Amino acid sequence: MKKFAVIVAGGSGSRMNNPTPKQFLLLKGKPVLYYSIHTFLKSYDDMQVILVLPEDHIAAGQEIIDAFFENSRIKITIGGSTRFHSVQNGLKLADEESIVFVHDAVRCMLSIDLVHRCYDAAMENGSAIPVISCKDSVRIVSAHGNESLDRSAVKLVQTPQTFHSKILLPAYQIDYKDKFTDEAMVVEAFGLKVKLVEGEENNFKITRPADLLIAEQLL
Amino acid sequence: MKKFAVIVAGGSGSRMNNPTPKQFLLLKGKPVLYYSIHTFLKSYDDMQVILVLPEDHIAAGQEIIDAFFENSRIKITIGGSTRFHSVQNGLKLADEESIVFVHDAVRCMLSIDLVHRCYDAAMENGSAIPVISCKDSVRIVSAHGNESLDRSAVKLVQTPQTFHSKILLPAYQIDYKDKFTDEAMVVEAFGLKVKLVEGEENNFKITRPADLLIAEQLL
Repeated sequence: MKKFAVIVAGGSGSRMNNPTPKQFLLLKGKPVLYYSIHTFLKSYDDMQVILVLPEDHIAAGQEIIDAFFENSRIKITIGGSTRFHSVQNGLKLADEESIVFVHDAVRCMLSIDLVHRCYDAAMENGSAIPVISCKDSVRIVSAHGNESLDRSAVKLVQTPQTFHSKILLPAYQIDYKDKFTDEAMVVEAFGLKVKLVEGEENNFKITRPADLLIAEQLL
Repeated sequence: MKKFAVIVAGGSGSRMNNPTPKQFLLLKGKPVLYYSIHTFLKSYDDMQVILVLPEDHIAAGQEIIDAFFENSRIKITIGGSTRFHSVQNGLKLADEESIVFVHDAVRCMLSIDLVHRCYDAAMENGSAIPVISCKDSVRIVSAHGNESLDRSAVKLVQTPQTFHSKILLPAYQIDYKDKFTDEAMVVEAFGLKVKLVEGEENNFKITRPADLLIAEQLL
Protein backbone atom coordinates (compact mmCIF):
# COMPACT_ATOMS: atom_id res chain seq x y z
CA MET A 1 0.00 0.00 0.00
CA LYS A 2 1.24 3.52 -0.75
CA LYS A 3 2.13 5.67 2.25
CA PHE A 4 1.96 9.43 2.69
CA ALA A 5 3.11 11.35 5.75
CA VAL A 6 1.49 14.79 5.86
CA ILE A 7 3.74 16.69 8.25
CA VAL A 8 2.13 19.88 9.46
CA ALA A 9 4.42 22.65 10.65
CA GLY A 10 2.19 25.61 11.13
CA GLY A 11 3.07 27.10 14.51
CA SER A 12 4.53 30.54 14.94
CA GLY A 13 6.46 29.67 18.10
CA SER A 14 5.08 32.40 20.35
CA ARG A 15 5.50 30.23 23.46
CA MET A 16 9.23 29.84 22.84
CA ASN A 17 10.16 33.54 23.31
CA ASN A 18 11.99 33.11 20.06
CA PRO A 19 11.28 34.63 16.64
CA THR A 20 12.27 31.36 14.96
CA PRO A 21 9.27 29.03 14.63
CA LYS A 22 9.66 25.91 16.77
CA GLN A 23 10.01 23.57 13.83
CA PHE A 24 13.17 25.41 12.69
CA LEU A 25 14.92 25.57 16.08
CA LEU A 26 18.11 23.55 16.24
CA LEU A 27 18.27 20.28 18.14
CA LYS A 28 21.74 18.74 18.19
CA GLY A 29 22.66 20.90 15.19
CA LYS A 30 19.65 19.98 13.05
CA PRO A 31 16.27 21.67 12.80
CA VAL A 32 13.41 20.09 14.77
CA LEU A 33 11.63 19.54 11.46
CA TYR A 34 14.48 17.33 10.23
CA TYR A 35 13.77 14.63 12.81
CA SER A 36 10.12 14.03 11.94
CA ILE A 37 10.88 13.86 8.22
CA HIS A 38 13.84 11.57 8.83
CA THR A 39 11.84 9.12 10.96
CA PHE A 40 9.05 8.82 8.39
CA LEU A 41 11.46 8.32 5.47
CA LYS A 42 13.37 5.67 7.46
CA SER A 43 10.17 3.84 8.44
CA TYR A 44 9.34 2.61 4.94
CA ASP A 45 11.29 2.78 1.69
CA ASP A 46 8.14 3.84 -0.15
CA MET A 47 7.03 6.48 2.36
CA GLN A 48 6.35 9.86 0.73
CA VAL A 49 6.44 13.02 2.80
CA ILE A 50 4.18 16.02 2.22
CA LEU A 51 5.42 18.94 4.21
CA VAL A 52 2.83 21.65 4.89
CA LEU A 53 4.36 25.01 5.79
CA PRO A 54 3.12 28.58 6.14
CA GLU A 55 3.87 30.50 2.94
CA ASP A 56 6.59 32.56 4.67
CA HIS A 57 8.50 29.41 5.63
CA ILE A 58 8.45 27.54 2.34
CA ALA A 59 11.92 28.74 1.37
CA ALA A 60 13.38 27.81 4.76
CA GLY A 61 11.73 24.39 4.53
CA GLN A 62 13.15 23.84 1.06
CA GLU A 63 16.63 24.70 2.33
CA ILE A 64 16.35 22.07 5.06
CA ILE A 65 15.23 19.45 2.59
CA ASP A 66 18.06 20.32 0.18
CA ALA A 67 20.60 20.22 2.98
CA PHE A 68 19.61 16.97 4.67
CA PHE A 69 17.67 14.76 2.25
CA GLU A 70 17.76 13.46 -1.28
CA ASN A 71 14.38 14.98 -1.88
CA SER A 72 12.67 12.75 -4.41
CA ARG A 73 10.28 11.52 -1.71
CA ILE A 74 9.43 14.96 -0.23
CA LYS A 75 6.99 17.59 -1.49
CA ILE A 76 6.16 20.94 0.07
CA THR A 77 2.81 22.69 0.03
CA ILE A 78 1.37 25.82 1.61
CA GLY A 79 -0.61 25.69 4.85
CA GLY A 80 -4.02 27.19 5.43
CA SER A 81 -5.44 29.44 8.11
CA THR A 82 -6.14 26.53 10.50
CA ARG A 83 -4.76 23.07 11.03
CA PHE A 84 -7.82 21.67 9.25
CA HIS A 85 -7.12 23.76 6.16
CA SER A 86 -3.42 22.91 6.24
CA VAL A 87 -4.17 19.20 6.32
CA GLN A 88 -6.78 19.67 3.60
CA ASN A 89 -4.10 21.28 1.40
CA GLY A 90 -1.62 18.52 2.15
CA LEU A 91 -4.13 15.84 1.26
CA LYS A 92 -4.44 17.25 -2.28
CA LEU A 93 -0.97 15.76 -2.87
CA ALA A 94 -2.02 12.37 -1.43
CA ASP A 95 -4.93 11.72 -3.75
CA GLU A 96 -4.34 7.99 -4.20
CA GLU A 97 -5.30 4.80 -2.40
CA SER A 98 -2.89 4.82 0.52
CA ILE A 99 -2.33 4.93 4.25
CA VAL A 100 -2.02 8.60 5.27
CA PHE A 101 -0.19 9.70 8.42
CA VAL A 102 -0.92 13.23 9.64
CA HIS A 103 1.82 14.39 12.00
CA ASP A 104 2.77 17.48 14.02
CA ALA A 105 6.27 18.50 12.94
CA VAL A 106 7.07 19.51 16.52
CA ARG A 107 6.48 15.95 17.78
CA CYS A 108 9.94 15.25 16.50
CA MET A 109 10.81 12.37 18.84
CA LEU A 110 8.39 9.80 17.43
CA SER A 111 9.92 6.38 16.82
CA ILE A 112 9.94 4.19 13.73
CA ASP A 113 8.13 1.61 15.88
CA LEU A 114 5.25 4.01 16.38
CA VAL A 115 4.99 4.64 12.62
CA HIS A 116 4.86 0.88 12.03
CA ARG A 117 2.28 0.37 14.78
CA CYS A 118 0.06 3.07 13.29
CA TYR A 119 0.42 1.66 9.79
CA ASP A 120 -0.47 -1.87 10.84
CA ALA A 121 -3.48 -0.74 12.85
CA ALA A 122 -4.74 1.58 10.09
CA MET A 123 -4.42 -1.25 7.56
CA GLU A 124 -6.52 -3.44 9.81
CA ASN A 125 -9.05 -0.94 11.17
CA GLY A 126 -9.01 2.06 8.84
CA SER A 127 -7.64 4.37 11.51
CA ALA A 128 -4.98 4.50 14.23
CA ILE A 129 -4.79 7.32 16.76
CA PRO A 130 -1.83 7.13 19.17
CA VAL A 131 -2.73 7.98 22.76
CA ILE A 132 -1.05 7.88 26.14
CA SER A 133 -2.46 7.77 29.65
CA CYS A 134 -2.77 10.91 31.69
CA LYS A 135 -0.56 11.21 34.78
CA ASP A 136 -2.63 13.96 36.39
CA SER A 137 -6.14 13.92 37.79
CA VAL A 138 -8.54 15.43 35.28
CA ARG A 139 -11.59 17.68 35.66
CA ILE A 140 -14.09 18.87 33.16
CA VAL A 141 -15.58 22.33 33.47
CA SER A 142 -19.03 23.38 32.33
CA ALA A 143 -21.55 26.11 32.95
CA HIS A 144 -22.61 24.14 36.05
CA GLY A 145 -19.19 23.97 37.68
CA ASN A 146 -16.60 21.24 37.39
CA GLU A 147 -16.41 17.52 38.01
CA SER A 148 -13.78 14.84 38.14
CA LEU A 149 -13.29 12.31 35.38
CA ASP A 150 -12.08 8.78 35.93
CA ARG A 151 -8.39 9.31 35.12
CA SER A 152 -7.95 5.77 33.86
CA ALA A 153 -10.50 6.48 31.11
CA VAL A 154 -8.77 9.66 29.91
CA LYS A 155 -6.31 9.46 27.03
CA LEU A 156 -4.08 12.24 25.68
CA VAL A 157 -3.99 12.24 21.91
CA GLN A 158 -0.79 12.35 19.86
CA THR A 159 0.12 12.08 16.21
CA PRO A 160 0.69 10.57 13.64
CA GLN A 161 -3.07 10.20 13.28
CA THR A 162 -3.22 7.54 10.63
CA PHE A 163 -6.02 6.60 8.25
CA HIS A 164 -6.87 4.72 5.13
CA SER A 165 -7.19 7.31 2.36
CA LYS A 166 -10.71 6.08 1.63
CA ILE A 167 -11.73 7.38 5.05
CA LEU A 168 -9.57 10.49 5.38
CA LEU A 169 -9.99 12.01 1.93
CA PRO A 170 -13.81 12.10 1.92
CA ALA A 171 -13.84 13.16 5.59
CA TYR A 172 -11.88 16.27 4.64
CA GLN A 173 -14.61 17.28 2.20
CA ILE A 174 -16.86 18.25 5.12
CA ASP A 175 -17.29 21.84 6.25
CA TYR A 176 -14.80 23.21 8.75
CA LYS A 177 -15.90 23.54 12.39
CA ASP A 178 -14.01 25.41 15.14
CA LYS A 179 -14.04 22.33 17.35
CA PHE A 180 -11.75 20.37 15.02
CA THR A 181 -8.49 20.19 16.98
CA ASP A 182 -7.27 17.07 15.24
CA GLU A 183 -7.95 14.66 12.39
CA ALA A 184 -9.80 12.12 14.55
CA MET A 185 -12.48 14.73 15.26
CA VAL A 186 -12.92 15.40 11.55
CA VAL A 187 -13.35 11.69 10.86
CA GLU A 188 -15.85 11.42 13.71
CA ALA A 189 -17.78 14.44 12.42
CA PHE A 190 -17.83 12.62 9.07
CA GLY A 191 -19.61 9.80 10.92
CA LEU A 192 -16.96 7.15 11.60
CA LYS A 193 -15.36 5.85 14.79
CA VAL A 194 -11.59 5.88 15.25
CA LYS A 195 -9.32 3.21 16.69
CA LEU A 196 -6.72 3.99 19.37
CA VAL A 197 -3.17 2.62 19.52
CA GLU A 198 -0.52 3.00 22.20
CA GLY A 199 1.47 6.23 21.78
CA GLU A 200 4.82 7.11 23.34
CA GLU A 201 5.69 9.30 26.30
CA ASN A 202 8.68 10.66 24.33
CA ASN A 203 6.46 11.70 21.44
CA PHE A 204 5.69 15.08 23.01
CA LYS A 205 5.26 18.46 21.32
CA ILE A 206 8.15 20.90 21.48
CA THR A 207 6.40 24.01 22.74
CA ARG A 208 8.60 25.40 25.53
CA PRO A 209 12.36 26.01 25.68
CA ALA A 210 12.58 23.22 28.29
CA ASP A 211 11.14 20.75 25.76
CA LEU A 212 14.17 21.28 23.52
CA LEU A 213 16.41 20.33 26.44
CA ILE A 214 14.45 17.15 27.09
CA ALA A 215 14.61 16.21 23.42
CA GLU A 216 18.37 16.85 23.40
CA GLN A 217 18.76 14.60 26.41
CA LEU A 218 16.73 11.83 24.81
CA LEU A 219 18.60 11.89 21.50
CA MET B 1 -5.99 31.73 60.12
CA LYS B 2 -3.60 28.86 60.89
CA LYS B 3 -1.99 27.16 57.91
CA PHE B 4 -0.84 23.58 57.46
CA ALA B 5 0.93 22.19 54.41
CA VAL B 6 0.60 18.40 54.28
CA ILE B 7 3.40 17.41 51.90
CA VAL B 8 3.02 13.86 50.67
CA ALA B 9 6.14 12.06 49.50
CA GLY B 10 5.09 8.50 48.99
CA GLY B 11 6.50 7.47 45.63
CA SER B 12 9.06 4.74 45.18
CA GLY B 13 10.60 6.24 42.06
CA SER B 14 10.30 3.21 39.80
CA ARG B 15 9.96 5.39 36.68
CA MET B 16 13.31 7.07 37.32
CA ASN B 17 15.50 3.94 36.89
CA ASN B 18 17.00 4.98 40.16
CA PRO B 19 16.82 3.27 43.54
CA THR B 20 16.59 6.67 45.26
CA PRO B 21 12.95 7.80 45.57
CA LYS B 22 12.24 10.87 43.43
CA GLN B 23 11.74 13.17 46.39
CA PHE B 24 15.32 12.54 47.56
CA LEU B 25 17.06 13.02 44.19
CA LEU B 26 19.34 16.03 44.05
CA LEU B 27 18.35 19.15 42.15
CA LYS B 28 21.08 21.81 42.14
CA GLY B 29 22.65 20.10 45.14
CA LYS B 30 19.52 19.90 47.26
CA PRO B 31 16.92 17.12 47.49
CA VAL B 32 13.73 17.62 45.47
CA LEU B 33 11.83 17.50 48.77
CA TYR B 34 13.71 20.57 50.01
CA TYR B 35 12.11 22.86 47.44
CA SER B 36 8.48 22.14 48.28
CA ILE B 37 9.11 22.54 52.01
CA HIS B 38 11.09 25.74 51.42
CA THR B 39 8.38 27.33 49.29
CA PHE B 40 5.63 26.64 51.82
CA LEU B 41 7.69 27.94 54.75
CA LYS B 42 8.58 31.09 52.79
CA SER B 43 4.95 31.70 51.78
CA TYR B 44 3.71 32.54 55.28
CA ASP B 45 5.59 33.06 58.56
CA ASP B 46 2.99 30.98 60.36
CA MET B 47 2.87 28.11 57.83
CA GLN B 48 3.40 24.71 59.46
CA VAL B 49 4.61 21.77 57.38
CA ILE B 50 3.51 18.17 57.95
CA LEU B 51 5.72 15.86 55.95
CA VAL B 52 4.24 12.43 55.24
CA LEU B 53 6.87 9.82 54.37
CA PRO B 54 6.95 6.03 54.01
CA GLU B 55 8.29 4.48 57.21
CA ASP B 56 11.57 3.51 55.50
CA HIS B 57 12.27 7.12 54.57
CA ILE B 58 11.53 8.85 57.85
CA ALA B 59 15.20 8.94 58.85
CA ALA B 60 16.27 10.34 55.47
CA GLY B 61 13.54 12.98 55.68
CA GLN B 62 14.65 13.97 59.19
CA GLU B 63 18.22 14.37 57.94
CA ILE B 64 17.06 16.75 55.21
CA ILE B 65 15.08 18.81 57.69
CA ASP B 66 18.00 18.96 60.11
CA ALA B 67 20.39 19.96 57.33
CA PHE B 68 18.34 22.66 55.64
CA PHE B 69 15.73 24.06 58.04
CA GLU B 70 15.33 25.29 61.58
CA ASN B 71 12.69 22.68 62.12
CA SER B 72 10.29 24.16 64.65
CA ARG B 73 7.65 24.49 61.91
CA ILE B 74 8.06 20.98 60.44
CA LYS B 75 6.67 17.67 61.68
CA ILE B 76 7.08 14.23 60.11
CA THR B 77 4.56 11.43 60.12
CA ILE B 78 4.30 7.99 58.53
CA GLY B 79 2.44 7.45 55.25
CA GLY B 80 -0.24 4.85 54.64
CA SER B 81 -0.76 2.26 51.94
CA THR B 82 -2.41 4.75 49.54
CA ARG B 83 -2.30 8.48 49.03
CA PHE B 84 -5.69 8.72 50.79
CA HIS B 85 -4.35 6.99 53.87
CA SER B 86 -1.17 9.07 53.84
CA VAL B 87 -3.16 12.29 53.76
CA GLN B 88 -5.45 10.94 56.46
CA ASN B 89 -2.41 10.35 58.68
CA GLY B 90 -1.04 13.80 57.94
CA LEU B 91 -4.34 15.44 58.82
CA LYS B 92 -4.17 14.00 62.36
CA LEU B 93 -1.44 16.59 62.98
CA ALA B 94 -3.59 19.40 61.51
CA ASP B 95 -6.56 18.99 63.81
CA GLU B 96 -7.31 22.71 64.29
CA GLU B 97 -9.30 25.38 62.48
CA SER B 98 -7.01 26.21 59.59
CA ILE B 99 -6.41 26.30 55.86
CA VAL B 100 -4.84 22.99 54.83
CA PHE B 101 -2.70 22.59 51.70
CA VAL B 102 -2.15 19.04 50.47
CA HIS B 103 0.83 18.92 48.14
CA ASP B 104 2.82 16.36 46.13
CA ALA B 105 6.45 16.63 47.24
CA VAL B 106 7.58 15.96 43.67
CA ARG B 107 5.79 19.10 42.40
CA CYS B 108 8.79 20.96 43.72
CA MET B 109 8.61 23.97 41.39
CA LEU B 110 5.44 25.53 42.77
CA SER B 111 5.67 29.25 43.40
CA ILE B 112 4.90 31.32 46.49
CA ASP B 113 2.33 33.12 44.32
CA LEU B 114 0.46 29.87 43.80
CA VAL B 115 0.41 29.15 47.54
CA HIS B 116 -1.02 32.64 48.14
CA ARG B 117 -3.59 32.24 45.37
CA CYS B 118 -4.76 28.92 46.83
CA TYR B 119 -4.93 30.36 50.35
CA ASP B 120 -6.99 33.36 49.28
CA ALA B 121 -9.40 31.25 47.24
CA ALA B 122 -9.80 28.63 49.98
CA MET B 123 -10.50 31.39 52.52
CA GLU B 124 -13.22 32.72 50.25
CA ASN B 125 -14.69 29.49 48.86
CA GLY B 126 -13.64 26.69 51.21
CA SER B 127 -11.54 25.00 48.54
CA ALA B 128 -8.97 25.81 45.85
CA ILE B 129 -7.78 23.26 43.33
CA PRO B 130 -5.06 24.48 40.94
CA VAL B 131 -5.57 23.37 37.35
CA ILE B 132 -4.00 24.06 33.98
CA SER B 133 -5.33 23.68 30.45
CA CYS B 134 -4.52 20.62 28.40
CA LYS B 135 -2.30 21.11 25.32
CA ASP B 136 -3.28 17.82 23.72
CA SER B 137 -6.56 16.64 22.28
CA VAL B 138 -8.30 14.39 24.79
CA ARG B 139 -10.37 11.21 24.39
CA ILE B 140 -12.33 9.22 26.87
CA VAL B 141 -12.53 5.46 26.54
CA SER B 142 -15.39 3.28 27.66
CA ALA B 143 -16.80 -0.16 27.02
CA HIS B 144 -18.45 1.32 23.91
CA GLY B 145 -15.27 2.66 22.29
CA ASN B 146 -13.81 6.14 22.60
CA GLU B 147 -14.94 9.68 21.98
CA SER B 148 -13.38 13.11 21.88
CA LEU B 149 -13.83 15.63 24.64
CA ASP B 150 -13.93 19.38 24.10
CA ARG B 151 -10.30 20.17 24.93
CA SER B 152 -11.13 23.64 26.18
CA ALA B 153 -13.30 22.08 28.92
CA VAL B 154 -10.58 19.71 30.14
CA LYS B 155 -8.36 20.75 33.04
CA LEU B 156 -5.33 18.91 34.41
CA VAL B 157 -5.27 18.94 38.18
CA GLN B 158 -2.24 19.94 40.25
CA THR B 159 -1.52 20.51 43.91
CA PRO B 160 -1.55 22.13 46.50
CA GLN B 161 -5.19 21.16 46.81
CA THR B 162 -6.28 23.59 49.46
CA PHE B 163 -9.27 23.48 51.82
CA HIS B 164 -10.74 24.93 54.93
CA SER B 165 -10.16 22.39 57.71
CA LYS B 166 -13.90 22.32 58.39
CA ILE B 167 -14.37 20.75 54.96
CA LEU B 168 -11.26 18.58 54.65
CA LEU B 169 -11.15 17.01 58.12
CA PRO B 170 -14.71 15.60 58.07
CA ALA B 171 -14.32 14.60 54.39
CA TYR B 172 -11.40 12.36 55.36
CA GLN B 173 -13.63 10.46 57.80
CA ILE B 174 -15.39 8.76 54.86
CA ASP B 175 -14.53 5.27 53.70
CA TYR B 176 -11.70 4.86 51.22
CA LYS B 177 -12.57 4.18 47.58
CA ASP B 178 -10.14 3.09 44.84
CA LYS B 179 -11.23 5.97 42.64
CA PHE B 180 -9.77 8.61 45.00
CA THR B 181 -6.77 9.90 43.05
CA ASP B 182 -6.72 13.25 44.80
CA GLU B 183 -8.22 15.26 47.67
CA ALA B 184 -10.81 17.00 45.50
CA MET B 185 -12.42 13.63 44.75
CA VAL B 186 -12.63 12.83 48.45
CA VAL B 187 -14.34 16.16 49.15
CA GLU B 188 -16.75 15.55 46.27
CA ALA B 189 -17.52 12.05 47.55
CA PHE B 190 -18.24 13.72 50.90
CA GLY B 191 -20.85 15.77 49.03
CA LEU B 192 -19.29 19.17 48.37
CA LYS B 193 -18.21 20.95 45.20
CA VAL B 194 -14.66 22.25 44.77
CA LYS B 195 -13.45 25.55 43.35
CA LEU B 196 -10.73 25.70 40.70
CA VAL B 197 -7.88 28.23 40.58
CA GLU B 198 -5.24 28.81 37.92
CA GLY B 199 -2.26 26.48 38.36
CA GLU B 200 1.21 26.84 36.82
CA GLU B 201 2.82 25.08 33.89
CA ASN B 202 6.07 24.86 35.88
CA ASN B 203 4.32 23.10 38.75
CA PHE B 204 4.80 19.67 37.18
CA LYS B 205 5.57 16.34 38.85
CA ILE B 206 9.12 15.06 38.72
CA THR B 207 8.59 11.54 37.45
CA ARG B 208 11.16 11.03 34.67
CA PRO B 209 14.89 11.77 34.55
CA ALA B 210 14.15 14.48 31.96
CA ASP B 211 11.92 16.27 34.47
CA LEU B 212 14.91 16.83 36.73
CA LEU B 213 16.70 18.51 33.82
CA ILE B 214 13.77 20.82 33.17
CA ALA B 215 13.57 21.73 36.84
CA GLU B 216 17.30 22.43 36.90
CA GLN B 217 16.91 24.70 33.89
CA LEU B 218 14.01 26.55 35.48
CA LEU B 219 15.76 27.14 38.81
